[in-house]
Amino acid sequence: MSYRAGKTILASTIAKKYSEELTSVTSKMATKPKLVGLLGNQDPAAKTYAEWTARTCESLGFQYELIQCPKENLEDEIYKCNQDDAVNGIMVYFPVYNDGQDQYLQQCVSIEKDVEGLNFKYVSNMYHNIRYLDAPENTKKSILPCTPLAMVKILEYLGVYNTLLPYGNRLFGKTITIVNRSEIVGRPLAALLANDGATVYSVDINNVQKFERGDGLQLKSHRVVDTEFELKDVAPKSDVIITGVPSSNYKFPLEYVKDGAVVINFSSEKNFDDRIKDIASLYVPSIGKVTIAMLLRNLLRLMNNKKPHSVEEI
Amino acid sequence: MSYRAGKTILASTIAKKYSEELTSVTSKMATKPKLVGLLGNQDPAAKTYAEWTARTCESLGFQYELIQCPKENLEDEIYKCNQDDAVNGIMVYFPVYNDGQDQYLQQCVSIEKDVEGLNFKYVSNMYHNIRYLDAPENTKKSILPCTPLAMVKILEYLGVYNTLLPYGNRLFGKTITIVNRSEIVGRPLAALLANDGATVYSVDINNVQKFERGDGLQLKSHRVVDTEFELKDVAPKSDVIITGVPSSNYKFPLEYVKDGAVVINFSSEKNFDDRIKDIASLYVPSIGKVTIAMLLRNLLRLMNNKKPHSVEEI
Repeated sequence: MSYRAGKTILASTIAKKYSEELTSVTSKMATKPKLVGLLGNQDPAAKTYAEWTARTCESLGFQYELIQCPKENLEDEIYKCNQDDAVNGIMVYFPVYNDGQDQYLQQCVSIEKDVEGLNFKYVSNMYHNIRYLDAPENTKKSILPCTPLAMVKILEYLGVYNTLLPYGNRLFGKTITIVNRSEIVGRPLAALLANDGATVYSVDINNVQKFERGDGLQLKSHRVVDTEFELKDVAPKSDVIITGVPSSNYKFPLEYVKDGAVVINFSSEKNFDDRIKDIASLYVPSIGKVTIAMLLRNLLRLMNNKKPHSVEEI
Repeated sequence: MSYRAGKTILASTIAKKYSEELTSVTSKMATKPKLVGLLGNQDPAAKTYAEWTARTCESLGFQYELIQCPKENLEDEIYKCNQDDAVNGIMVYFPVYNDGQDQYLQQCVSIEKDVEGLNFKYVSNMYHNIRYLDAPENTKKSILPCTPLAMVKILEYLGVYNTLLPYGNRLFGKTITIVNRSEIVGRPLAALLANDGATVYSVDINNVQKFERGDGLQLKSHRVVDTEFELKDVAPKSDVIITGVPSSNYKFPLEYVKDGAVVINFSSEKNFDDRIKDIASLYVPSIGKVTIAMLLRNLLRLMNNKKPHSVEEI
């Protein structure tokens, strides 16, 4: 029998540092920053998640307001919030239509209040490794999509980022499999990790793509190629396996997980059977608390971008 | 036996007036305006369509360059064209990835060269009936998505727009069924026609939505509701039936077409059996030539927006 000493790491443990930073900033502010959540579907799970967001925001010194409305009114409600000076950040609970119209709605959120970092400008900057909105002054940081950003912070906490390597190349030598290639999380995450030096296999139902650091035309950017690989080819050689499959039926095949791999699930569903704890060296079963901390961090950053130095730098 | 006097109207007939306008403008220009088409897929039909675009452009006094590349390079090629002063307009042949990534790619095209009118700003302006980019000066016209715009011109030609009614309400009293609710054509088209006063039933595989003129929060905008209707409920009461189903197997059920309806197919596939000619009063089997005329019209408009009065107003 082999010696097993894997650990399960909870998101709350990883989030602690960021939560404390947030509380420290908000405690000094005269008015609590305000986040609005817009819920346009009738899914009880989304409602529960929204209520959880509310409690988390309040515990960290933020105001939170939930606006629930028929999906037909969502666009109007977004524009109302865009123009309301009392609102500092806006998030929309997706899916609403579960098709291209959701991408349209996301773009309706003012770039100045987009805490999720999903505005085309932010995503495009991320893909091209552009860190500031106002080059060459570089006083306004571009916002990173909050779930991919949370994943970077988690990988830092877990020691997957090697701090002996230079900044921007700290994943050099690491192979990472990501099961999910959504425009919201999977694809930006793959690009972000490739930009930091990892070899990333991005898996969806159609194929496996390989993301690597590359040089674009003039923009330092990742390189992507389709491969003939299947999950069984890439997962066993991966140091890190990240999943985000939004289905309660899906379970990642444990026989493809390398002994001692780092395993992270960002789906709200449980993508791994409990036996993963006997295989993974570090296992993070969910990431919500880190994501919300990053979202609120983005909110403070947006406030900073709007009125330089009005909010303490974090 | 009933008297049948339906007519088939070809897109070339409808496009003639616009083609002549274009030629008249370009013939006076020192340098022919340049359109670049970007083809990132290997579909021979797309290649054929691109070659057809080239011939049409040249016949109307435009330069056309086709750039064909692996889909992984498409984003770089778009940015290159964005920065090339010799390029006045850019179009991307979709689908490339056939998922959300296509929407991302579309947004990479500079708003100043987006001849298809699919930049978020243009689409959002269209949904809210905002006609200018630079209110309150109102010197720069917002660009309309070219296929929906072509459809409006076709409906004007066919007399569906009633010129006795005030501008902006010329479809008042008309019922229109549209089979297609893509973000590129079907949904913007439904909104555009509803904004002009029509009752529009938008049909896709999931349901039937009803679009009507409405008043948004502060933006004059269409109103949308889900209905319990099926195609068989809405098509027979429609004055106009418009289809865009990208499948060679799909045929619209002729028994749902009202005697004497106006029927338009914008799919590259034949959505109607030839017997439609015995039912429709006016039948437009394809619209490509009008669409390309609108795309080139958008190109001249974009040039006008950039350098006011440099190009003759059309």
